[in-house]
Amino acid sequence: MDHIYMKKALELSLLGEGRVNPNPMVGAVVVKDDKIIGTGYHKEYGGPHAEVFALDEAGDKAQGATLYVTLEPCSHYGKTPPCAKKIVEMGIKKCVVSCLDPNPLVAGTGVKYLEDNGIEVITGIMEKDGIEINKIFFKYITKKIPYLFLKCAITLDGKIATSNGSSKWITNEISRERVQAIRNKYSGIMIGINTLLADNPSLTARIENGRDPYRIVVDPYLKINLESKFTNFSDKKSIVITSKDNLENNPEKIKTLIDKNIILVYLENYQFKISDILIELGKLSIDSVLLEGGGYLISQAFKENIIDEGEIFIAPKILGDEKAISFVKGFSIENIADGIQLENIRINTYGDNVSFSFSS
Amino acid sequence: MDHIYMKKALELSLLGEGRVNPNPMVGAVVVKDDKIIGTGYHKEYGGPHAEVFALDEAGDKAQGATLYVTLEPCSHYGKTPPCAKKIVEMGIKKCVVSCLDPNPLVAGTGVKYLEDNGIEVITGIMEKDGIEINKIFFKYITKKIPYLFLKCAITLDGKIATSNGSSKWITNEISRERVQAIRNKYSGIMIGINTLLADNPSLTARIENGRDPYRIVVDPYLKINLESKFTNFSDKKSIVITSKDNLENNPEKIKTLIDKNIILVYLENYQFKISDILIELGKLSIDSVLLEGGGYLISQAFKENIIDEGEIFIAPKILGDEKAISFVKGFSIENIADGIQLENIRINTYGDNVSFSFSS
Repeated sequence: MDHIYMKKALELSLLGEGRVNPNPMVGAVVVKDDKIIGTGYHKEYGGPHAEVFALDEAGDKAQGATLYVTLEPCSHYGKTPPCAKKIVEMGIKKCVVSCLDPNPLVAGTGVKYLEDNGIEVITGIMEKDGIEINKIFFKYITKKIPYLFLKCAITLDGKIATSNGSSKWITNEISRERVQAIRNKYSGIMIGINTLLADNPSLTARIENGRDPYRIVVDPYLKINLESKFTNFSDKKSIVITSKDNLENNPEKIKTLIDKNIILVYLENYQFKISDILIELGKLSIDSVLLEGGGYLISQAFKENIIDEGEIFIAPKILGDEKAISFVKGFSIENIADGIQLENIRINTYGDNVSFSFSS
Repeated sequence: MDHIYMKKALELSLLGEGRVNPNPMVGAVVVKDDKIIGTGYHKEYGGPHAEVFALDEAGDKAQGATLYVTLEPCSHYGKTPPCAKKIVEMGIKKCVVSCLDPNPLVAGTGVKYLEDNGIEVITGIMEKDGIEINKIFFKYITKKIPYLFLKCAITLDGKIATSNGSSKWITNEISRERVQAIRNKYSGIMIGINTLLADNPSLTARIENGRDPYRIVVDPYLKINLESKFTNFSDKKSIVITSKDNLENNPEKIKTLIDKNIILVYLENYQFKISDILIELGKLSIDSVLLEGGGYLISQAFKENIIDEGEIFIAPKILGDEKAISFVKGFSIENIADGIQLENIRINTYGDNVSFSFSS
């Protein structure tokens, strides 16, 4: 039965997707006499934990019940009081945990607290699923580097735009709908300056009740257009990554951007490494970045072999134009076996479009 | 019930795939008192027609029975005596036909002969399927131009080989198995001279009981290597398409090729149109051509908008090398909407490979 209740808890956890970052998604179920008497999930960053909702719903009946929770209950005072303490106070008899919390502040201390207080603890139930669901959290909490997801839409000949930047639309509506769902999962969406200048994108998650991610543009030479949509949000969620040299070379534009509530991140020189960009974004509590283009950043990400996961959408369209923009370039491959081989492939179809999902 | 028996006849017809060209695939079923008393299909080019096998199996019982046949019975003396005559002689009462024969030598005269002899004829049962199965025959018999099928295997960035021609293997084994089945369907396999020089391919259909197709190389400057596999088959099924100028410029090589049982086809100048190539191949009774590459011929076929059908296999591999060989090039596209849009898409998966099937 453990698997059935844990599966329910894992499903509940997913309801917090895109709303709890950089916290983990967590689901909890309280069971007594083979009946679910309380459920909960972590709904939003800084809000009560899953266990609290589930235990409160169970109320007095929690006495002697079993708690299923997808991640080790916390034992420290963070934004909220420790769950482990509440679990003991509510009289839970047994606690079934999917995976331990890699957060150095928890890391086994939650389980220890429960056991020290006489609660039977079982860990590792559907552990793989528990870790998979929180792969963003697991990476960020241990490395402080955002999880990097690549999304791109290409033609059959691997182009992301024509030579003059026309890219609307390569993929069909069903694919683009799917992209909106992807955008809802990540804390930030990152593009290169050329993509911004060509497309003037909104970079919002256009799904019902979706929350907007951070918008991030990599713009070494500060070419950004002050009339672009990007520079005219008032939510302090637009980030420009630019060369430190612009502080000296272009102080007025920087001042204007700051006045427009744009967050500026400075890096040395002009050829940025994605790994350096991610370190800086991690410092801003951004736990995950969706890289959407263009060709330069995507190529750079492949060169640094730094992509955690991705989905490449393909439309049955051909440009056949050597001047069109390739989604990856700059490699020199002599033998076909030396090409970049994507791993852990899953194939998805969206009408007449197809996508390869992959992960490192 | 008509559909059930016609479906059976259509299934039977497919058993002749790749063996009857340039004749049509035909299946036939004789039914009496709701029982199948005879079945047949056209087994090989020049051999007895489907109706003959089915009627002979039914024997005397054919008297008063119904014949289901996927294509209008012939009424003329060709390689075999007319089936319509035999149908009358055997005492068939009713004849159900999927589609009329577009062959100008038949074209309704078969049905007329049957009706004139008191047989009830119903046509158009599962007609779409009947035409679909024989699309090669329908094109060739009316236009004398071979049906053109494109097959290619590309990386995610649309490359068919590295800059130095390395292409083994882009796709996985399951995809390559599927290619062997495709090769079995078409009368000829066509490649460009560069592909031949780079790969030295066998161009055989490596499936059990498969028959070998014509091997066709487009070689305007007669660069062919006399040690290649291509020039060393003794079956008179290797065709070199070259410039007429070589008769004068390279008479010795031409003589050697002729001595090696190679068929030579001459075209004017050096920039051949695929349409001209197909006309010449049609004259050799080749009803269908599988175009396998390379980039030049594929691009040319797209430019001439002459591809009847195709399947493009994609592997989750990226070369990212601008010098690698693109599967289509030479177009100049400003607006994404002006790209080549493949139509009638079907998506197929082969393990971690995917393919787009399309048709004009």
